[in-house]
Amino acid sequence: MRILKGGIVAPDGFYASGVHCGLKKKKLDLALIYSEVKCNASAMFTKNIVKGNPIIVCKEALIDGKAQAIIINSGNANTCTGEDGLIKAHYMTELVAKAMELDKVDVLVASTGVIGVPLDVSLIEDSIETLKEGLSRTGNINAREAIMTTDLIHKEVAVSINIFGKEVKIGAMAKGSGMIEPNMATMLAFITTDINIENSLLNSALNIAVNKSFNLISVDGDSSTNDSVFIMANGLAKNEIIDSENDYYFEFVDALTYVCVELSKLIASDGEGATKLIECRVLGCKNELEGINIAKAVIKSSLVKTAIFGSDANWGRILCAMGYSGIEFIENKVKLAFESSRGYIEVFKEGIPIEFDETKAKEILKDDDISIIIDLNMGNEKAVAWGCDLSYEYIRINGDYRS
Amino acid sequence: MRILKGGIVAPDGFYASGVHCGLKKKKLDLALIYSEVKCNASAMFTKNIVKGNPIIVCKEALIDGKAQAIIINSGNANTCTGEDGLIKAHYMTELVAKAMELDKVDVLVASTGVIGVPLDVSLIEDSIETLKEGLSRTGNINAREAIMTTDLIHKEVAVSINIFGKEVKIGAMAKGSGMIEPNMATMLAFITTDINIENSLLNSALNIAVNKSFNLISVDGDSSTNDSVFIMANGLAKNEIIDSENDYYFEFVDALTYVCVELSKLIASDGEGATKLIECRVLGCKNELEGINIAKAVIKSSLVKTAIFGSDANWGRILCAMGYSGIEFIENKVKLAFESSRGYIEVFKEGIPIEFDETKAKEILKDDDISIIIDLNMGNEKAVAWGCDLSYEYIRINGDYRS
Repeated sequence: MRILKGGIVAPDGFYASGVHCGLKKKKLDLALIYSEVKCNASAMFTKNIVKGNPIIVCKEALIDGKAQAIIINSGNANTCTGEDGLIKAHYMTELVAKAMELDKVDVLVASTGVIGVPLDVSLIEDSIETLKEGLSRTGNINAREAIMTTDLIHKEVAVSINIFGKEVKIGAMAKGSGMIEPNMATMLAFITTDINIENSLLNSALNIAVNKSFNLISVDGDSSTNDSVFIMANGLAKNEIIDSENDYYFEFVDALTYVCVELSKLIASDGEGATKLIECRVLGCKNELEGINIAKAVIKSSLVKTAIFGSDANWGRILCAMGYSGIEFIENKVKLAFESSRGYIEVFKEGIPIEFDETKAKEILKDDDISIIIDLNMGNEKAVAWGCDLSYEYIRINGDYRS
Repeated sequence: MRILKGGIVAPDGFYASGVHCGLKKKKLDLALIYSEVKCNASAMFTKNIVKGNPIIVCKEALIDGKAQAIIINSGNANTCTGEDGLIKAHYMTELVAKAMELDKVDVLVASTGVIGVPLDVSLIEDSIETLKEGLSRTGNINAREAIMTTDLIHKEVAVSINIFGKEVKIGAMAKGSGMIEPNMATMLAFITTDINIENSLLNSALNIAVNKSFNLISVDGDSSTNDSVFIMANGLAKNEIIDSENDYYFEFVDALTYVCVELSKLIASDGEGATKLIECRVLGCKNELEGINIAKAVIKSSLVKTAIFGSDANWGRILCAMGYSGIEFIENKVKLAFESSRGYIEVFKEGIPIEFDETKAKEILKDDDISIIIDLNMGNEKAVAWGCDLSYEYIRINGDYRS
């Protein structure tokens, strides 16, 4: 697997653009992804009962498993906006269909931003021609900006692999920084690939990758109304079609998982107010699911998050979070350690605190990429989840922005 | 029902004291509650798998359903301290048993404070005589201070009711401000009463009251290792014994529930860094449990909590939290409103945002006692839960205290 530049336009035949239409004051707020041929397409959406109108539109449009373009706006989630909002989400796909001469059902739509404010769709209508004209093989640069809300960094990844002797590329971009929670987040992710693959296998590959990545991150425990992960495969790599779960399928799954994990870590480390990425690795589990539940409880704990913010090796809070995760374990078998690029330190073993060098622990925890390592000593499985610390800045962004 | 002063010593025959033994730098850190006769006693403990050593000791001591004294220290939770910690928890009860000439199994013990630090039990041993000498009918004043950790206010309640023509009193004190979560919290609550009641009924009354109070509050979603609610009933009111679920039993349950709800609201409003008490009332539920789950999801949402901190009527975050609560409801039937002593305002109805006066909403939300009112319009049941906002101060207390 090779790492590429170019994000969503790295794969052959994909074009993107991003413009400012006026939903935000100054920043880019409208993006388009377009494939020169029709794609096999799949998506996964939020499990929140309250769903954004764009999701309702996309679910219908994806019944045939095909798509050729995605329009995305930031600055307004078009959620809890009633029948009017649904009509406008449909209208966004119609605008693109007309401009690009596509069938309406081959256009997908995603929105992110404030909930409950009527969408001024005329701003999008007025910008659709500029958006179309901007489509290019370097359009990832504007598109990745246009989908951002409180994100501080843009998030994109691209890789290539060899499938049946052909170079197959996968590109992706994502946004997301608050309302981030396992089972996705106010997180939008868009994945493009030129692989030639059957639709059902594209769908199962996406499922596997999402469960090993986006579903393992948490910023603040709030699972959003608009979370969506899209994938479009246009087949232009011209590899022999993947129509069974052969070795190449699993190679594709691995590469797709890599792409999704990298985006997930970017999202977690860019969590609202985050100063540190926290990885929780659980070793020695009886099974992976139990490990995931423990890891999620730890990265979601406000007390663990604030301790890491303060570079404080307060391992009691980790044990406490493990204890309410709902998973059985034996306290006297547990080992706890912290690790970063600055070193490794064990703090608890076999039911007893280890006397450790607090200065060294603090130094390790001052890094901006912290691993919490839990060994349950109960089996041979392992699991991981990612989150971020909880800082003053999270409060300012979410509680103080109007005052 | 009459409101009384005196907290845990309001009921006849109870004495309390509180001293400084040295587990904390300056503040009182050791308390004793004592009844002049042996009591029927019951308790409920944390569901966290990791349990403080005092809880292990109390579970054994309560097998006979009797107790006469409780010793409580703050400044050290005596949790995750291994076999040594368990021996010390037992030793604390032995110290009281010896000083007060009681059986060891009639002494209960509770600890709160930092996890994983060996308890210096010699400090407690050295203070046990002073603690005993301090016992008095006004000792609630020192005892309520000695159990505090990051609490900013002491928390006590006392009431009296009439049972079979006799005045029966209930007194209580609690501590708790961080690690507060439904299914209790780093919360300790001590309830005394002079009612004459059978042990099994005392136990069931406590269960009902706790489920309607302490199990409905959340500060930060972290359910602690040491949560405990104790009740001791010494019978000195000399009422005819309550030995069946008669009208007087339910009158006692109501009064006990009142006491627990008042303590719960004091705990939520004194949540670490809290500037506001948040009450979430859910109306029109199909059943109470569904309403409780929705109310808990709302009061636990970091985004709702920060919005309330910022006096921002961001109802989209409430709908979002309802949507991931796991409870089915119909968005188009939901009504949302905010209420405080400064007024009432509806913001969402039948799937559509209501255009409301943002200045008025902000004014209402500037109060320090906020109600979020959700009407599901799906049935006739209702539910409530309490929490607090999330402020800069929470981060300072939990993340920045050592730097």
